[in-house]
Amino acid sequence: MSNIHETAVVSALSNVHPTVKIGAYSVINEHVKIGEDSIIESFCEIGIKNSLNKSDQLTIGPRSLIRSHSVIYSGSVFERNLETGHHVTLRENIKAGVNLRVGSYSDLQGDLFIGDYTRIHSNVHISKHSSIGNFVFIFPFCVFTNDPIPPSELVRACTVSDYAVIASSATLLPGVNIGQHAFVGAGSTVTTDVNEYSLVVGTPAKKIKDVREIKIPGEPEVPAYPWKSRFNRGFTDEAIKILLQTEV
Amino acid sequence: MSNIHETAVVSALSNVHPTVKIGAYSVINEHVKIGEDSIIESFCEIGIKNSLNKSDQLTIGPRSLIRSHSVIYSGSVFERNLETGHHVTLRENIKAGVNLRVGSYSDLQGDLFIGDYTRIHSNVHISKHSSIGNFVFIFPFCVFTNDPIPPSELVRACTVSDYAVIASSATLLPGVNIGQHAFVGAGSTVTTDVNEYSLVVGTPAKKIKDVREIKIPGEPEVPAYPWKSRFNRGFTDEAIKILLQTEV
Amino acid sequence: MSNIHETAVVSALSNVHPTVKIGAYSVINEHVKIGEDSIIESFCEIGIKNSLNKSDQLTIGPRSLIRSHSVIYSGSVFERNLETGHHVTLRENIKAGVNLRVGSYSDLQGDLFIGDYTRIHSNVHISKHSSIGNFVFIFPFCVFTNDPIPPSELVRACTVSDYAVIASSATLLPGVNIGQHAFVGAGSTVTTDVNEYSLVVGTPAKKIKDVREIKIPGEPEVPAYPWKSRFNRGFTDEAIKILLQTEV
Repeated sequence: MSNIHETAVVSALSNVHPTVKIGAYSVINEHVKIGEDSIIESFCEIGIKNSLNKSDQLTIGPRSLIRSHSVIYSGSVFERNLETGHHVTLRENIKAGVNLRVGSYSDLQGDLFIGDYTRIHSNVHISKHSSIGNFVFIFPFCVFTNDPIPPSELVRACTVSDYAVIASSATLLPGVNIGQHAFVGAGSTVTTDVNEYSLVVGTPAKKIKDVREIKIPGEPEVPAYPWKSRFNRGFTDEAIKILLQTEV
Repeated sequence: MSNIHETAVVSALSNVHPTVKIGAYSVINEHVKIGEDSIIESFCEIGIKNSLNKSDQLTIGPRSLIRSHSVIYSGSVFERNLETGHHVTLRENIKAGVNLRVGSYSDLQGDLFIGDYTRIHSNVHISKHSSIGNFVFIFPFCVFTNDPIPPSELVRACTVSDYAVIASSATLLPGVNIGQHAFVGAGSTVTTDVNEYSLVVGTPAKKIKDVREIKIPGEPEVPAYPWKSRFNRGFTDEAIKILLQTEV
Repeated sequence: MSNIHETAVVSALSNVHPTVKIGAYSVINEHVKIGEDSIIESFCEIGIKNSLNKSDQLTIGPRSLIRSHSVIYSGSVFERNLETGHHVTLRENIKAGVNLRVGSYSDLQGDLFIGDYTRIHSNVHISKHSSIGNFVFIFPFCVFTNDPIPPSELVRACTVSDYAVIASSATLLPGVNIGQHAFVGAGSTVTTDVNEYSLVVGTPAKKIKDVREIKIPGEPEVPAYPWKSRFNRGFTDEAIKILLQTEV
């Protein structure tokens, strides 16, 4: 138990692997399962229950890293290698694949499906019932919405397909679908669906070109997108193998 | 005292009702009054004093819920049923009516007047001296500004009238007044006053129609606004009675 | 040691001046130097090490104020009179001059150079390798980006020159340079360099006038910019002396 700081409060009804490190003043509630070699930093509260939890369990896979001041609700399953920034809020009923990264201050509002190897940067707000694919990149201050006539009981959630990129400060209006390999420019407000391989920018966002026409700066012959053939920083060997598979 | 976690630090000069629950590691400073059946979650600091406080008292009404990692300054009065998300900052000299909701990460900068039954979602920034009416909805990442020639000593604060809706990621420029039942579209930058019942969108925001022309999706005969005749989730019986009053 | 709350965890290998006050539940790690008369409020973690730290030291100058729930990494030097809001994240390898202010929830991502007397308000996101001059004002929800073809290994960081003003919710695209005394309007998306003394607004931001043509509201004869001749709230005598120097 020497991995657990003496000021941490760990429920006897939790299931924390003996290799897990827990920082000062963190609280681990009952029915929380944390896999081997994970780290929970200081000032976190893990396993918050509320009336919306579909399950009273929370599963955080092996080799995860939860940075300080983060809050994670019960009712979710995060597969191995979850990594969060500081001050993150992850609400109930999230099903997330392997190696999800969530940046500081991001707020995942719950009832979400997220694929494998997706990276959500800082200050991103994902509204309830959104669905996000594999290898998606969402940059700081993006906001997903889901209510077509706010306030209402209607939910028109957004979907984002594999390999799509949503640049900083973009806002997705309710029910928008972002296609595979699409790119949403920084500061855009997306009001309609974005086709695969489309680059859209502006308010409202309009298609200005195919992403395959974008070149690497200084290398006018080399297409920059799809990005999967040229970028793999921080991905595991297994992920890189997937990235480099030729598409059918 | 069994409602107070053993690690909480509660000033002997506070006035916390015996039914209040206080979570792990929270700090309640002197001259804080918390009404019956309220819950203060973990890692909060309640009752911070600074040189700007008009009063050294802080009043949080009965049946309030303050979620974890929140910070509330002295000098404010929140009536019953205040509910906050996580990581909220509520500064000094706020006068708020009943049943205010403030979402995670929102930052109310102080010297504010807020009416009854208003809902401020996550990551909203309300600048000093703003005035917000009753039954107002402000969605995530909205920013209110107040300085017409920044940086300056001038204050031109924004006002929002009853039943108005400000959708996600909207920015209000200094001194803008939003009329009753108006609707500001997501991602808009509002540079001039918005008349009652107007729908404005864009940067700069322009009126595109009367809100009463917006229909419920799939129900082309049914007007969606004013919303008060069709939405009441989470409101008390008393609030619903007000919502359903016919206007004169 | 009576300035240090009994629940604070202060490393024996830190170098905290005896006059420093440390609040409840804060953690000060090893190799942290904090100068005289500074205050660290509650729930902070100061001196986080990671593999990106260029140094394992952190220096916080005299008379600094770090508000609650803030996180500061090792590898940075902040000169005297640093002042932060709540829930701030300051990452590794920042070199900041005197009297830097950073508002609540702001996230300085590291590898930064920041001059003297600069004020970064709430919820600002500064991406890695940005460079910010002296007496710069950056208002809430501004986002600096640095990757021209995200995701990539390329870094095209932004620079902001002395006395520039970036109003709320502005987004700077990768590699943008903001000239001295320039003004970026609220809600703008800046896609190209901004010349000195230019006022730019919109998405994409376009120059609409010279800042020296902007007048003080109600005083049509009095130019509002450069602001340095008319605003000095909160600055020290030394700073005011610099502000009032006539330019050559």
